[in-house]
Amino acid sequence: MVSSPDLLRSAVVPPKARRRGRPPTRVLHRDCITDAALSLTTSAGYEGLTVAALARNLDVAKSALYNHVASKQDVLRLMEERLISQVDVAGFGCGPWDEAMRRWAWSYRDVFSKHTPLIPVIAVLPVADAPRTLEMYEAVSSDLAAAGIPNSKIVPSIVAIESLVFGAAFDVDAPPDVFDGCLGGFSPSFAVALQAARAAEIEEPRHDAAFNLGVEALLEGLKALLT
Amino acid sequence: MVSSPDLLRSAVVPPKARRRGRPPTRVLHRDCITDAALSLTTSAGYEGLTVAALARNLDVAKSALYNHVASKQDVLRLMEERLISQVDVAGFGCGPWDEAMRRWAWSYRDVFSKHTPLIPVIAVLPVADAPRTLEMYEAVSSDLAAAGIPNSKIVPSIVAIESLVFGAAFDVDAPPDVFDGCLGGFSPSFAVALQAARAAEIEEPRHDAAFNLGVEALLEGLKALLT
Repeated sequence: MVSSPDLLRSAVVPPKARRRGRPPTRVLHRDCITDAALSLTTSAGYEGLTVAALARNLDVAKSALYNHVASKQDVLRLMEERLISQVDVAGFGCGPWDEAMRRWAWSYRDVFSKHTPLIPVIAVLPVADAPRTLEMYEAVSSDLAAAGIPNSKIVPSIVAIESLVFGAAFDVDAPPDVFDGCLGGFSPSFAVALQAARAAEIEEPRHDAAFNLGVEALLEGLKALLT
Repeated sequence: MVSSPDLLRSAVVPPKARRRGRPPTRVLHRDCITDAALSLTTSAGYEGLTVAALARNLDVAKSALYNHVASKQDVLRLMEERLISQVDVAGFGCGPWDEAMRRWAWSYRDVFSKHTPLIPVIAVLPVADAPRTLEMYEAVSSDLAAAGIPNSKIVPSIVAIESLVFGAAFDVDAPPDVFDGCLGGFSPSFAVALQAARAAEIEEPRHDAAFNLGVEALLEGLKALLT
């Protein structure tokens, strides 16, 4: 989340003259629009993100906003591209493919755990016209193919890891007391498991232990596909 | 989704006498409230689910609704319990634990893929006071412990599978054209992978291929934990 009033102010050029009866228009940058949209989604949810609310938050007229973005879908694409550009794909194309996948998965989860209201919409967003997203998929596909994953298994492999990543991002966001109040006689096996998980939390947060288990299992699963 | 006007009508008893100046109150069943809440969430999203909108949809006064549910959180709990009661846990306690896990994971995904707007809220909902949910966790924990998964790994195992399930539920919901328009020279490896995935779709839908890969990898990962 890089939005801040200062950032917005520095990139917004005040109008030279204000025409009577019309709201002021300002020179907007798409980066500022993205900042403001991410900020608005964090505070008001994806439903709270409307072109009208965005214009209000940027202190510009809706018409000024429409000079830069055609629709809410367009704003969503900007947010997706911003988030994906924060995901670490630097491991691909150099070094072991499984290490690159691990780095990718953990950073992907960390980025989206800070923007969970966007997961339901970005998870189902067509990737055409999203160059950073395509770039990411290209980096992953290229390494998986070079490693020897059969072509027909590459997209399912990516989707399986993304599914784990998106689900786990919600888990990072879950309150620490999500399993509280379960230590009764009603669910004895689960109570024992919870106590053991809590004791293990001294070494590793619960959500990290679960995600680590999931990522390592998926990477082993991919190794089993190698031809 | 079991809500229908007929179902609601059959369970709603019309008042014998209507007092002047007050909205009619009706005898409500918590099942009807759950039906209406699920229906409203499907059409209006979780943000659209308010006690006022729910009362309107049920054609009762807000005060009548408050006789049955204390808050939106309470309604959410009803919806969670309804959905979890549709998840197949019948494999636990009889037969091989991995087969039971497989059945559980697939049915869990199928149930939530029809109610994706609830995933972000249910994924982070404390489980205390949710007896069906606790019952489900107890069934899974008991089988995992009996199979030989160390106690400290049971909760992480459940959370890893749930993460995959929740992420995959969104993927079921994704439009079939989610990867369309990517077959350019811009992302050659991804284009080859997509073409191969599309050819394989004749035998198995894309989202099932990805989920199958994920579930089988996680089950193998759990087997590696067995003591």
